[in-house]
Amino acid sequence: MLPRRLLCLAALVAVTLVAASLTGQPAGADPLPSWNDGPAKKALLDFVARVTKQGGPDFVPVPERVATFDNDGTLWCEHPVYFEVVFSFDRVKALADKNPDWKTKQPYKGILEGDYKAALAAGEKAIFGVIAATHAGMTPTEFDGVVRDWLKVARHPRFKRPYTDLVYQPQLELLAYLRANGFKTFIVSGGEAGFMRAWADGVYGIPPEQTVGSRIGLKYELRDGKPLLERMPTLDFIDDGPGKPVGIGRFIGRRPILAFGNSDGDYEMLQYTTTGTGPRLGLIVHHTDAEREYAYDRDTHVGKLDKALTEAPKAGWVVVDMKKEWKTIFPPEKP
Amino acid sequence: MLPRRLLCLAALVAVTLVAASLTGQPAGADPLPSWNDGPAKKALLDFVARVTKQGGPDFVPVPERVATFDNDGTLWCEHPVYFEVVFSFDRVKALADKNPDWKTKQPYKGILEGDYKAALAAGEKAIFGVIAATHAGMTPTEFDGVVRDWLKVARHPRFKRPYTDLVYQPQLELLAYLRANGFKTFIVSGGEAGFMRAWADGVYGIPPEQTVGSRIGLKYELRDGKPLLERMPTLDFIDDGPGKPVGIGRFIGRRPILAFGNSDGDYEMLQYTTTGTGPRLGLIVHHTDAEREYAYDRDTHVGKLDKALTEAPKAGWVVVDMKKEWKTIFPPEKP
Repeated sequence: MLPRRLLCLAALVAVTLVAASLTGQPAGADPLPSWNDGPAKKALLDFVARVTKQGGPDFVPVPERVATFDNDGTLWCEHPVYFEVVFSFDRVKALADKNPDWKTKQPYKGILEGDYKAALAAGEKAIFGVIAATHAGMTPTEFDGVVRDWLKVARHPRFKRPYTDLVYQPQLELLAYLRANGFKTFIVSGGEAGFMRAWADGVYGIPPEQTVGSRIGLKYELRDGKPLLERMPTLDFIDDGPGKPVGIGRFIGRRPILAFGNSDGDYEMLQYTTTGTGPRLGLIVHHTDAEREYAYDRDTHVGKLDKALTEAPKAGWVVVDMKKEWKTIFPPEKP
Repeated sequence: MLPRRLLCLAALVAVTLVAASLTGQPAGADPLPSWNDGPAKKALLDFVARVTKQGGPDFVPVPERVATFDNDGTLWCEHPVYFEVVFSFDRVKALADKNPDWKTKQPYKGILEGDYKAALAAGEKAIFGVIAATHAGMTPTEFDGVVRDWLKVARHPRFKRPYTDLVYQPQLELLAYLRANGFKTFIVSGGEAGFMRAWADGVYGIPPEQTVGSRIGLKYELRDGKPLLERMPTLDFIDDGPGKPVGIGRFIGRRPILAFGNSDGDYEMLQYTTTGTGPRLGLIVHHTDAEREYAYDRDTHVGKLDKALTEAPKAGWVVVDMKKEWKTIFPPEKP
């Protein structure tokens, strides 16, 4: 038996150790150092304090602390064009020899000739077709490898950095802070789930089973007698707009208490989240920083933010002014 | 600063406290007391020891410790008929006044008249139609309430107990044991996800986001200006047979290392799980206990186990003889 005082001390140490291991930092440190002291940071700290205050009026039990994040433009950069579209176009080039008909068929022809205007003129549905075609024909594990190989060599045209370097440092801190406070963090994105799952765990700490996205077909079959899943070139589900609450209902089965988006594609997710009962928080990244990142909202094709920006004050959504509220944008370059 | 010896002691205590809080029991206690000392218990203990042995040849990192369980006949009883079918039939009776055409239309007519033979003669597709119709027309939260209200009053015809009492005590212990060893436990069942999510968390400790099942439609809409999800009477996905690996790929995005089933509907899940590389374990509940539960395998319509039973020895799947290997079947009745 340990003497009582020693036991007591040990317990205190244990609690401190556990707390430190959960938050990864000493007590009292700023959990969001890349956020300036502005209204967004205050809203986040206040909200987390309220929902975690045992016995408080806004206390939320741990299992219900569900936070959903859009990906493109919310967790990582999306300009000048969605990174997954860049990946798809690079795949078209890589697979062109195996698909000779692409040379004469839009949008493939435009992609292969670098005439993106002609390619995009084929319409959104045709572009989704390109995404489905370039993401299929292999197992999820094989596709993981293709995406990771691409990430090793592909570089952003302006920042000259790997695309996975262009995640937002303030959001990495927020994800860790929420998890340290008992939240389960999910991606709910229009991006194809398999594309994100290839790297989201390593970059955001969000595992595949918490990454909800658009879906291509999936088929169980035998290849040379070996059972496997085959990714099929059909678009099964678009996890965007009203599809986001549906994706949340299907995969998570709980209404989030916090949702973070950046475009009108997140409107319904924000609406669904913040009209539930009890404490709720909706947030929008507003891209206002042409110097360090990009400045766009109502007048863009990539990440258009119009209706949700108009609605934000009425709905109580916190608009995060990137230029003012984020001390840093991207993590430092790895040496 | 604490003296070094004290710190060391404190750390030891901390580790012990954390370990105890994870397993919920003192070190050394039998984690599977309702399992007799037979081949199945040995296989489970050996497997968990191997995959958790840091530095060992079969070590599996925590995030990859995914275990999937069928529900009907694997985690809870499924005879004389799937409990969800009983629920659906009870719902048909409860909703009959609102659907006057059901009185003359099979399979509804048979259900209302207690002529189940006539109802079942309408075929499997018609029965799935009944499930879809009786599970829809409301929000997931409203449906949760309907299921929970039903569970309060419905009683199993033979055991005269609430259906959620008829879960398998050995499996409750196994789920807890796996989780204490870093596994994430998932349900992967032919049952409709919403039906299971209403009670699986409370009964098994498996949260909604880890409950994968068949799916009816889901639609985001406004009802009296209030945004909500509406459950639709369409069957979107059947999570059974080859659908199980597909459900796993979609929702979990990792190949499980342990799968537990009891019927041919689990064949592909067992096959997909155990043909992956590294340590794998497939298990089958074999219902051999007519006295304490039921005895059936090849010759039954509910939970038919034929092909998977034949294949088990070759595939290395552990067949759990319920009569021999389970000390108790159901948890004790609540006073």
